[in-house]
Amino acid sequence: MPGAIPASVTRLIDEFSRLPGIGPKTAARLTYYLLRTPDENALALAEALRDLKATTRYCSSCYNITEQDPCPICSDEKRDHEMICVVEEPLDVVAFERTQNYRGVYHVLHGAINPIEGVGPDQLRIKELVARVSQGAVREVIMATNVGLEGDATAMYIHRQLNGLVRLTRLARGLPVGADLEYADSITLSGALEGRQEMHE
Amino acid sequence: MPGAIPASVTRLIDEFSRLPGIGPKTAARLTYYLLRTPDENALALAEALRDLKATTRYCSSCYNITEQDPCPICSDEKRDHEMICVVEEPLDVVAFERTQNYRGVYHVLHGAINPIEGVGPDQLRIKELVARVSQGAVREVIMATNVGLEGDATAMYIHRQLNGLVRLTRLARGLPVGADLEYADSITLSGALEGRQEMHE
Repeated sequence: MPGAIPASVTRLIDEFSRLPGIGPKTAARLTYYLLRTPDENALALAEALRDLKATTRYCSSCYNITEQDPCPICSDEKRDHEMICVVEEPLDVVAFERTQNYRGVYHVLHGAINPIEGVGPDQLRIKELVARVSQGAVREVIMATNVGLEGDATAMYIHRQLNGLVRLTRLARGLPVGADLEYADSITLSGALEGRQEMHE
Repeated sequence: MPGAIPASVTRLIDEFSRLPGIGPKTAARLTYYLLRTPDENALALAEALRDLKATTRYCSSCYNITEQDPCPICSDEKRDHEMICVVEEPLDVVAFERTQNYRGVYHVLHGAINPIEGVGPDQLRIKELVARVSQGAVREVIMATNVGLEGDATAMYIHRQLNGLVRLTRLARGLPVGADLEYADSITLSGALEGRQEMHE
């Protein structure tokens, strides 16, 4: 349809379509929405995108995304630097921080081992974790990779690398809050059974 | 959660959340996706956003979004300039062009009359349409506003403005291709019944 859509509109639709979970129809809707709204909206988004990459880097200690190095968590002296929680993604750090229940530090792997997609241990920040632990002052490493094939394989791989160097734990598996036993999948239920704990009054 | 999310990340999440149909979780997912991908991706999107507003304007004849004025459709001499199809949004033009079955020109209203949201006739390009028709050389105006309260009210308003000046038609109402009669809503079915046509061999 030459003529019906200006090139700059097509280009923005294409760029939006590249984002995960955004199809061509959503991309077109977003683009025409921005055309309708004041210039500032599109420009504010453009500027935020530009700044995202310009002002952020990886923390040289935990590899979380940060604007200052080391990141605010790693440079917070009130946190327990002897306890490292190993997660796959920066958003996992956000989830833990939201609990306000973890006072240790993190290590962000930036993915999980996935042979089908060609992600091996070398693409992840695993050797950096081993180096961090080898330096000594770490008491416990909590494996908090996702529950599933890739996350478990990654946890097992790291377990082999760190075995004997440090205390290694992993998050408890079991039923989530609000779960209806009737609908729980059998792997979750098996995990909950295996991890059963003594009841206390 | 100070510390867990850098300010530039929060800002992009906020900007994405402003877009229609994008909630805070999707916004965070998009932002962290862009953080993981090469710089070029975020910058290409930023540039496309900047260009969108810089290079587009409204066609001074049909008010479609365009990079040149008059737009390619209005300046195409092979099209029938005596037939104007009135639509609510630029994306409606795209839908018509996709049929490759319409050779007239368009008029984009940029909305529909909606008293609840405070959109009256003056916010739409209606007086520009009346001016275009009053200049004379128009044979037919096809009302192609959306089917529904706002679109029908807009069509009726324009009908009153243009009555007597020009031939006014509206799109046929009826069952869409692939429709299952059993599940058709009663307004669509009534419209299909009213608009029934003679069968030809």
